[in-house]
Amino acid sequence: MALCEPLELEDYGVQVIGEASPPKWHLAHTTWFFETFLLKPFVADYRSFNPEFEYLFNSYYDGVGEQFPRPERGTLSRPTVSEVMAYRRHVDEAMRLLLDSDQAQVRDRVVLGLNHEQQHQELLVTDIKANLGLNPLRPAYVGSMAGTGEVPSVPMAFTEYSGGIAQIGADGGDFRFDNENPRHRVWLDDFSLANRLVTNAEYAAFIADRGYESPALWLSEGWRWRREHSVGAPLYWREVDGTWFEYRLDGEQPLAPQLPVTHISHFEADAYARWAGARLPTEAEWESVAREHRVAGNFADGVLHPLPATDPGLSQLFGDCWEWTSSAYTAYPGFEPLPGALGEYNGKFMSGQMVLRGGSCATPAGHVRASYRNFFYPPDRWQFTGIRLAKSTNRS
Amino acid sequence: MALCEPLELEDYGVQVIGEASPPKWHLAHTTWFFETFLLKPFVADYRSFNPEFEYLFNSYYDGVGEQFPRPERGTLSRPTVSEVMAYRRHVDEAMRLLLDSDQAQVRDRVVLGLNHEQQHQELLVTDIKANLGLNPLRPAYVGSMAGTGEVPSVPMAFTEYSGGIAQIGADGGDFRFDNENPRHRVWLDDFSLANRLVTNAEYAAFIADRGYESPALWLSEGWRWRREHSVGAPLYWREVDGTWFEYRLDGEQPLAPQLPVTHISHFEADAYARWAGARLPTEAEWESVAREHRVAGNFADGVLHPLPATDPGLSQLFGDCWEWTSSAYTAYPGFEPLPGALGEYNGKFMSGQMVLRGGSCATPAGHVRASYRNFFYPPDRWQFTGIRLAKSTNRS
Amino acid sequence: MALCEPLELEDYGVQVIGEASPPKWHLAHTTWFFETFLLKPFVADYRSFNPEFEYLFNSYYDGVGEQFPRPERGTLSRPTVSEVMAYRRHVDEAMRLLLDSDQAQVRDRVVLGLNHEQQHQELLVTDIKANLGLNPLRPAYVGSMAGTGEVPSVPMAFTEYSGGIAQIGADGGDFRFDNENPRHRVWLDDFSLANRLVTNAEYAAFIADRGYESPALWLSEGWRWRREHSVGAPLYWREVDGTWFEYRLDGEQPLAPQLPVTHISHFEADAYARWAGARLPTEAEWESVAREHRVAGNFADGVLHPLPATDPGLSQLFGDCWEWTSSAYTAYPGFEPLPGALGEYNGKFMSGQMVLRGGSCATPAGHVRASYRNFFYPPDRWQFTGIRLAKSTNRS
Amino acid sequence: MALCEPLELEDYGVQVIGEASPPKWHLAHTTWFFETFLLKPFVADYRSFNPEFEYLFNSYYDGVGEQFPRPERGTLSRPTVSEVMAYRRHVDEAMRLLLDSDQAQVRDRVVLGLNHEQQHQELLVTDIKANLGLNPLRPAYVGSMAGTGEVPSVPMAFTEYSGGIAQIGADGGDFRFDNENPRHRVWLDDFSLANRLVTNAEYAAFIADRGYESPALWLSEGWRWRREHSVGAPLYWREVDGTWFEYRLDGEQPLAPQLPVTHISHFEADAYARWAGARLPTEAEWESVAREHRVAGNFADGVLHPLPATDPGLSQLFGDCWEWTSSAYTAYPGFEPLPGALGEYNGKFMSGQMVLRGGSCATPAGHVRASYRNFFYPPDRWQFTGIRLAKSTNRS
Repeated sequence: MALCEPLELEDYGVQVIGEASPPKWHLAHTTWFFETFLLKPFVADYRSFNPEFEYLFNSYYDGVGEQFPRPERGTLSRPTVSEVMAYRRHVDEAMRLLLDSDQAQVRDRVVLGLNHEQQHQELLVTDIKANLGLNPLRPAYVGSMAGTGEVPSVPMAFTEYSGGIAQIGADGGDFRFDNENPRHRVWLDDFSLANRLVTNAEYAAFIADRGYESPALWLSEGWRWRREHSVGAPLYWREVDGTWFEYRLDGEQPLAPQLPVTHISHFEADAYARWAGARLPTEAEWESVAREHRVAGNFADGVLHPLPATDPGLSQLFGDCWEWTSSAYTAYPGFEPLPGALGEYNGKFMSGQMVLRGGSCATPAGHVRASYRNFFYPPDRWQFTGIRLAKSTNRS
Repeated sequence: MALCEPLELEDYGVQVIGEASPPKWHLAHTTWFFETFLLKPFVADYRSFNPEFEYLFNSYYDGVGEQFPRPERGTLSRPTVSEVMAYRRHVDEAMRLLLDSDQAQVRDRVVLGLNHEQQHQELLVTDIKANLGLNPLRPAYVGSMAGTGEVPSVPMAFTEYSGGIAQIGADGGDFRFDNENPRHRVWLDDFSLANRLVTNAEYAAFIADRGYESPALWLSEGWRWRREHSVGAPLYWREVDGTWFEYRLDGEQPLAPQLPVTHISHFEADAYARWAGARLPTEAEWESVAREHRVAGNFADGVLHPLPATDPGLSQLFGDCWEWTSSAYTAYPGFEPLPGALGEYNGKFMSGQMVLRGGSCATPAGHVRASYRNFFYPPDRWQFTGIRLAKSTNRS
Repeated sequence: MALCEPLELEDYGVQVIGEASPPKWHLAHTTWFFETFLLKPFVADYRSFNPEFEYLFNSYYDGVGEQFPRPERGTLSRPTVSEVMAYRRHVDEAMRLLLDSDQAQVRDRVVLGLNHEQQHQELLVTDIKANLGLNPLRPAYVGSMAGTGEVPSVPMAFTEYSGGIAQIGADGGDFRFDNENPRHRVWLDDFSLANRLVTNAEYAAFIADRGYESPALWLSEGWRWRREHSVGAPLYWREVDGTWFEYRLDGEQPLAPQLPVTHISHFEADAYARWAGARLPTEAEWESVAREHRVAGNFADGVLHPLPATDPGLSQLFGDCWEWTSSAYTAYPGFEPLPGALGEYNGKFMSGQMVLRGGSCATPAGHVRASYRNFFYPPDRWQFTGIRLAKSTNRS
Repeated sequence: MALCEPLELEDYGVQVIGEASPPKWHLAHTTWFFETFLLKPFVADYRSFNPEFEYLFNSYYDGVGEQFPRPERGTLSRPTVSEVMAYRRHVDEAMRLLLDSDQAQVRDRVVLGLNHEQQHQELLVTDIKANLGLNPLRPAYVGSMAGTGEVPSVPMAFTEYSGGIAQIGADGGDFRFDNENPRHRVWLDDFSLANRLVTNAEYAAFIADRGYESPALWLSEGWRWRREHSVGAPLYWREVDGTWFEYRLDGEQPLAPQLPVTHISHFEADAYARWAGARLPTEAEWESVAREHRVAGNFADGVLHPLPATDPGLSQLFGDCWEWTSSAYTAYPGFEPLPGALGEYNGKFMSGQMVLRGGSCATPAGHVRASYRNFFYPPDRWQFTGIRLAKSTNRS
């Protein structure tokens, strides 16, 4: 609810791009999740707020029923925001009673519901950014953002890591999503990893070097995507009279060279890496390094834009930008989906998407961990995505 | 503004179908019209409210500049409704000063602007109906509607009219649109015309007789349209357990058999007429009859739904439903568009559309006349369209 | 069969654009027509050549059954050309026996079948032209074409015609298509008509004057069409180093300025006329003039390309190019389709198309007459279409 | 050339589905490959057969130049088959001279060209199958096929394999494609593998159990694909009066229960495996097993359809059907593309596709090996694809 405070009422309903959803929809869908997976199964006499909402706010759970078409979520003026708020109050009230019951299965699902809610908190931020930033008036969402100013970035450097058998995936203990299981062994060859994310200045050099016009740098599908959509810069960049500007949540600003480049597709990240004589890391490489580091960085409780790297050591692993990896999103060996409709949570998307790691400036603090696997389609750009370079070493 | 009073703020921004526009857009576009065609050319020191609005609220005037894509009008949360209201006040204020100047050219354009505004008043009603009626929650726009109740309809009867040379098109005097000019002669063969519109009961008989499954009744394009869109009933009809319901602006109701069928495409009107052993009238036939009748009927100041025919004579010519004709929308002999960008008003749409006559229950009273030519594409159904049958007589 | 003689066997099967059909398909479909509408109903013991052909070679007769999808006609390598030839022999043989029976209904349908065959003879030429001319190798279909050389065209001049009541439509006697009926009165205002078709030189001046970049000259749908398809010249024109070339059936040639411009859409014809300060004629204007002239001109037994106008009087009415009119293709007053599936012949296409008149250089001699109505969609360009200008006169 | 011998001349040009190419195109493209990558760079005075062919028969090499659009390959009636044959003779002649020169780089590229040719030999078979099998007449390509008859299949059984560090990828020595490099270590958990491919009878049980109607069995993208394309059976299956038939290269036949199911998409293979309580193997699992076996099976020199498993041990690893794996097609650690335009050979397709292993009944004998990686998009079905089940074992 706090994330929606800067919005005008009109902002709650729009859907500028098919991938994004209206804020109102997020508010209702997260409520629907608790109603569907907790109240209906565990509260004997639960009275549904409105039976039509089961259809309207089901995202993709075929096991629950039919869904309202996703690209048309922006056509629903009703229920109104105030009706959605009443829905939230209704469900919150019922949840409060259920929480007192303290059943183990309830507790586990509540934790899942909260993690689900955090995922939608991030989507709220990125979807609001699309709604405002792609509007020709480009209104700001927040006032000025500390830390995006003049501080220079540290130089890029690569650190070598020795290969061998590593273990990746969630270890026991705290909450993790189904797709992080099971923990398992992988073999890693020696590799090196950049100490920080690629900056706007570095990415602008790729553009200036005609990177977007050089087919040899691109995957075949990326090249087709680039041509069909006439892509020539990151999503929120705009060139006016030879100068680059970037829309950020504090409004459109002259491009800040020291900030990490963000809102780029996997195709762009991959082409950039090839141009730079490097590659993207695999998710196993990334995780094997990240698990040795504390989960700290610029998350959603900080600044809603990636900040410059100021520490010469390895930095920006967590927060700032989701880092595209070279790994396709598939099941870990021995993966088992959850039972029932919740089995649709992550497993059924294991086709055609790429893994991203580390969280972003829009991720709620405490939500991610080293084993956390995010996934998007290669052309997706509306998340806070970024690039960390890797290299293979000691090949013979 | 009065038409928008029943709306929730959320209703102002949505666009459920590509042909319709958000209410907010109509409010801003009609204001843009006065700003663009009156204030900018005739007020020396006029200060534009917001230069970006020239792009955002231009409907289709290439002579004025580029336009924001029509199907994406529902993605604009900004400007907000309150900003649009401020825009209206700004322009109203400037218009008030200009009106005092009383120049002839200003007066003519103001009248054009008012007629333009009336057209958008009708679109506001039909677009709001689409937004609410195609929403799965089907909210009502008004309370109960008088006159839609139990009164039976008179039987259908045909009156014969003798052919000969007729004159159609606007005669001098009051305002008329460019496309009604010039008045000109046409030859008419003898014909007969039904005394009233086709009713829901009659149309339901066409459905029951498998009219939608009989290709011989359909134009080739209509048959393809019907299959591609799985059309089997008028736009707002819905069958539940073998009973027909119709969404009206007072909410979804059991189908009232005596009311005129409405929200049907030209393809459906044409197929129905063929099934009924009749045809649609030409626009010249219609006008030659209508000019002998007073412009009176159920307009937007009455009930926002077509009412039953209770007069055994010729009725429902004006108001109730726009009547599809068999005439393609083309230029009258000697047609001259207005000079400048206003020349785009009607002339450039003379391709692929069909003429409708007589106004509807959503047309502002005083807006139409016998020579008035409305036009829509054959598949369009979201206007209050209806069917009046005609027949050729004395053929040898 | 003679029209196919210059073809390679490979040319019989391809379909370069969706509107065109493979030559093999035409050969089979015209045979199917005789089989379906004559042999099956009138020959008691007729043995179908191959029952699957009823589905494969039905063009659009819903009353006969389902049809193989039109845009996929180029995917059928089987039946082979030689099997289609056997099909033709089989049907020809059976027809020969039936013709001896000399029933009146048979005779009428045979005449219809022959006229149908002539229509497909023209389509064979234009579809072959598309297949060869849009192939990057641009092979020629015939050797050099007499008459396309250096002869200059006469200057354009307009002749005035007095209005009044005219009669158009087929008069009794010889064969005519259903859509030419019934003969009926129309009123014509005074008008004038150009003595000849617009030439390549004149059309090139329109291009040079940025006609394709001036929205005010275009119908709204035409402007959208032009932009979506990046149209900037007639279909077979190509600019190489600042010089225009035109593919003709004798291969690609430098553009001959004196020849009529051809292969232009209705949108282009309409925009050109507006640019030239004129308009297209109505079909009634055209027919009222043409019926006073002998049906003579450059038909398919002459040169397969429109020839220059060398007679200072009214010329090129018949043959050379189909002349786009400003008339939408709709039913004449009192029009009655033929009974049964043949009722689908012309009537069901009376939606969205424009009338063309006069025949072209690809029309079989003897096929057309003053009352003949051809019809195509406004964007269609692969026929030999052309422009004759008209003007309204004596307007007050 | 031998593969084309059963064809009619008409069969050389058609393209029934966008993924397939006309046989004529394959004949020309493989020739183009030798001309482009051997004759032009290595023969000083080489005279191009036809410079336009560089554009027409370039498949996807951006480094060589623009390409004729792939889905329109079936629209090219020219060059004719006989011109393509002349092209082949021209290039063969020049190659014969070049081969005598015996340079090392030439030798390597010739080997690449021959392997490239073998890949197109397989595509010729599968594309011809699509062209004939999707034609409503369903003509046969060969006479009866030995071995597809009454022999029953052995029962399915699973063999367990111990995990550990394995090495996959090409080892030194003979030819291998760039994407098989480099040989590298991977960690494998314990797993088990089915002894043979899934049969038609087993797959029919999945259909009978409503597998195609159960969303829980499907990946999200697979479910969408299934609905959009109304898929309910393998590509060449057809149900007539309750009985399944399968089009094979010997024509349409009653479904043979003991033969391997083939022409299924990755989505179908994955859904089937889930239904069967198993999963698809990873490419590393598959290769670690396959490298211990001799490369022998039913290849293109045998029967052009997968044959039943008659050996109770592990069989059908090579030949019969390409086996879908659960591995997305990405680069091996340390992968380096070839230099120049040949670098586009395999690397640029490493996005969105899945790996298949083992070769099929249409693969030339001697072409594949244990490390061979084939790749197709998840919906692709026109190759001889099949299913081998795997399971994870010893999970705790």
